[in-house]
Amino acid sequence: MALSAATPASPTTSTTTAPDATSPASFGNAVALSCRECGERFPLGPIFACTSCFGPLEVAYDYPAGAITRESIAAGPNSIWRYAALLPVPAGVAERPNLNPGFTRLVHARNLARELGMRALHVKDDSGNPTHSFKDRVVAIALEAARTFGMNTLSCSSTGNLAGAVGAAAARAGLRSCVFIPSDLEAGKQVMAAVYGGDLVGIDGTYDDVNRFCSELIGDPIGQDWGFVNVNLRPYYGEGSKTLAYEICEQLGWRIPEQIVIPIASGSQLTKIDKGLAELVKLGLVEDRPYRIFGAQATGCSPVSAAFKAGHDVVRPVRPDTIAKSLAIGNPADGPYVLDICRRTGGAVEDVSDAEVVDSIKLLARTEGIFAETAGGVTVGVLRKLLASGALDPEAETVVLNTGDGLKTLDAVAGTGPSAVIKPTLDAFRAAGLA
Amino acid sequence: MALSAATPASPTTSTTTAPDATSPASFGNAVALSCRECGERFPLGPIFACTSCFGPLEVAYDYPAGAITRESIAAGPNSIWRYAALLPVPAGVAERPNLNPGFTRLVHARNLARELGMRALHVKDDSGNPTHSFKDRVVAIALEAARTFGMNTLSCSSTGNLAGAVGAAAARAGLRSCVFIPSDLEAGKQVMAAVYGGDLVGIDGTYDDVNRFCSELIGDPIGQDWGFVNVNLRPYYGEGSKTLAYEICEQLGWRIPEQIVIPIASGSQLTKIDKGLAELVKLGLVEDRPYRIFGAQATGCSPVSAAFKAGHDVVRPVRPDTIAKSLAIGNPADGPYVLDICRRTGGAVEDVSDAEVVDSIKLLARTEGIFAETAGGVTVGVLRKLLASGALDPEAETVVLNTGDGLKTLDAVAGTGPSAVIKPTLDAFRAAGLA
Repeated sequence: MALSAATPASPTTSTTTAPDATSPASFGNAVALSCRECGERFPLGPIFACTSCFGPLEVAYDYPAGAITRESIAAGPNSIWRYAALLPVPAGVAERPNLNPGFTRLVHARNLARELGMRALHVKDDSGNPTHSFKDRVVAIALEAARTFGMNTLSCSSTGNLAGAVGAAAARAGLRSCVFIPSDLEAGKQVMAAVYGGDLVGIDGTYDDVNRFCSELIGDPIGQDWGFVNVNLRPYYGEGSKTLAYEICEQLGWRIPEQIVIPIASGSQLTKIDKGLAELVKLGLVEDRPYRIFGAQATGCSPVSAAFKAGHDVVRPVRPDTIAKSLAIGNPADGPYVLDICRRTGGAVEDVSDAEVVDSIKLLARTEGIFAETAGGVTVGVLRKLLASGALDPEAETVVLNTGDGLKTLDAVAGTGPSAVIKPTLDAFRAAGLA
Repeated sequence: MALSAATPASPTTSTTTAPDATSPASFGNAVALSCRECGERFPLGPIFACTSCFGPLEVAYDYPAGAITRESIAAGPNSIWRYAALLPVPAGVAERPNLNPGFTRLVHARNLARELGMRALHVKDDSGNPTHSFKDRVVAIALEAARTFGMNTLSCSSTGNLAGAVGAAAARAGLRSCVFIPSDLEAGKQVMAAVYGGDLVGIDGTYDDVNRFCSELIGDPIGQDWGFVNVNLRPYYGEGSKTLAYEICEQLGWRIPEQIVIPIASGSQLTKIDKGLAELVKLGLVEDRPYRIFGAQATGCSPVSAAFKAGHDVVRPVRPDTIAKSLAIGNPADGPYVLDICRRTGGAVEDVSDAEVVDSIKLLARTEGIFAETAGGVTVGVLRKLLASGALDPEAETVVLNTGDGLKTLDAVAGTGPSAVIKPTLDAFRAAGLA
């Protein structure tokens, strides 16, 4: 099988060896890859960039009219596979060994809403996924594509959440995994990435060096049958984020919320949630009504927010410097699309300082019992900031995303500790003022 | 309100101030507390020991004939509240602010089964709970009891999982929490316990000192309106573990597995799973068929296993010394009941070394992509050991419990790391032997 490299080969030259890759049923209702820029269409294959204009490819569908209903979805499993008909996966996907991610809790955040003066607020809490981040959603779709393409190794570059999601998914699927990380990654994160028993390779260099090396591997015979989930499988991978939109609407009783606050790393998640909402409307699963999408960044890595505020259409890359490492992509590939969506829907992009991130992690934990990773501190922080500025309407039904787990970014709240340390006596307890 | 202390007061002297505590509906189909030893019955109240014989109390029910069906359960929420009719909680419990724990994944562990030579193995993975351990189940029931009794503070002594579960549940419910820990607890665990913003009190002493101090507090006016989830609310708290039995059977298609491997700390969970299975049979929700229950301990804290092997009915306390800290109860209150159940069902109790625990954590991660805490290493380790000894039948349908999350016991697998550290070149990668 010839994989497309950074300079994409013609997809028609792909000679896949997978047994079922030629069957359209392998991708369900997906029918093609389509260029986001020029609209050119390609057969479904392990390619990720348009051969005509180098634009990013995304999955296009031909949904059977009337066959996808609220009832057919509700009859499905309690995972993203209840939406299998809306994803590039075969019909029996839930029966194939995978982590069955998704259908995480949508938490009615009454306490946080009260504290912020809001009428109706929900937290979509993706820390409930198998490896405790939204990455399980996207990796699950990439895994199916890798199987269909007959790939033998699941791979990625990562500094955290993705490494665990790829390692765990490959383990369950019985595929090899080979994950690349910067060798100076914190010891705890190396453990989380290595525990699933796949190959973990520390690269003596920066995260950018790791990424460059992965691109080299894709172009080399070594990487011939490898699926880099967020590179040569990216069109499929990205579709996993649509399930956040589906779940939010279904869990609200098949209704689009009026406002959604979404973190921005590459920007892919935000664009796919918008795509998912549009699909639900088109299929008649929800009523068409206006919604506003808000993007959230940490100030230490806020190129999209800066472009939004400056009124620019393009994003100028930055060198990240923030505790929100899962969002620290200085050159976000989907930045321009994010700007377009946030402007078109009447939303905004905003950023918050690391101190505000920490404060917002604590606020969410204290009010709703949800311990978010730093990315969740970013979205809740931006929610607060946009309420204060008036950009967000406190009367509108709002959903804020928590995409990861506080246990993975304990350092962010390392100062948190006991209210008091006392001897085990009633007198000491009374003296501590906690009785 | 008078709470019963270590020496239980007569429950009839309780003068509760809660608005709805006198309404039987507050406890659903639960009708009384009943002594496990002498069978004496008491009204539902914040008491935990029999005034006649000091035996432990448990909740007794009067289920409405025919009203609890597979269909009525399936129509309920995706949480333990789908079984509300089988728990001491009011009918509308799912609408009250709580963490909505449970209905975690039952993973068909094909890879692990193959590796162990088993026909049908499932892992009940409770790391998917809101604070990533089974404690969310038991705390949720205790919380409802605390509300019904008009208590204003949720409390416990803990060295880990329980502290987080209590802190998070109280935060969501809008109750104060006050959690007691040994002051020398690892920094990371202190963060996890403190982040929910309740009071966290470090006690200058051992875990036993912490427990003794909590008993003192219950008897003091300070603790008058406090619910210690695993002390004065223990009869309610314990019922939460029944939901593991309900979920396992429902997720198997309403069938009791032939063998279940359960960790033993106090032993409460194992006894309540057995109680839950018996209830399902009595209600006609599953077919009555033999099942065998196996208890799992770490060798460094294996008083129940030692008693089982010696043929004793009583358990001699030990001083724990194991990495499986969430199971490190040297004097397990329900030890004798565990021995009785494991013997009566034809099961066994076994223990494994810390090295076997670590090895089994890695085995589960490598085969199924599930990163378990040390308690999960204990159950998987015991599963292997009992298969090797012939005590467990490899042809029988088996469920093994993982009750917590590997992210909370990272130290156990601290040695895990990269297969190689290389410079970012293809030559270096080839030289590392991973291509």
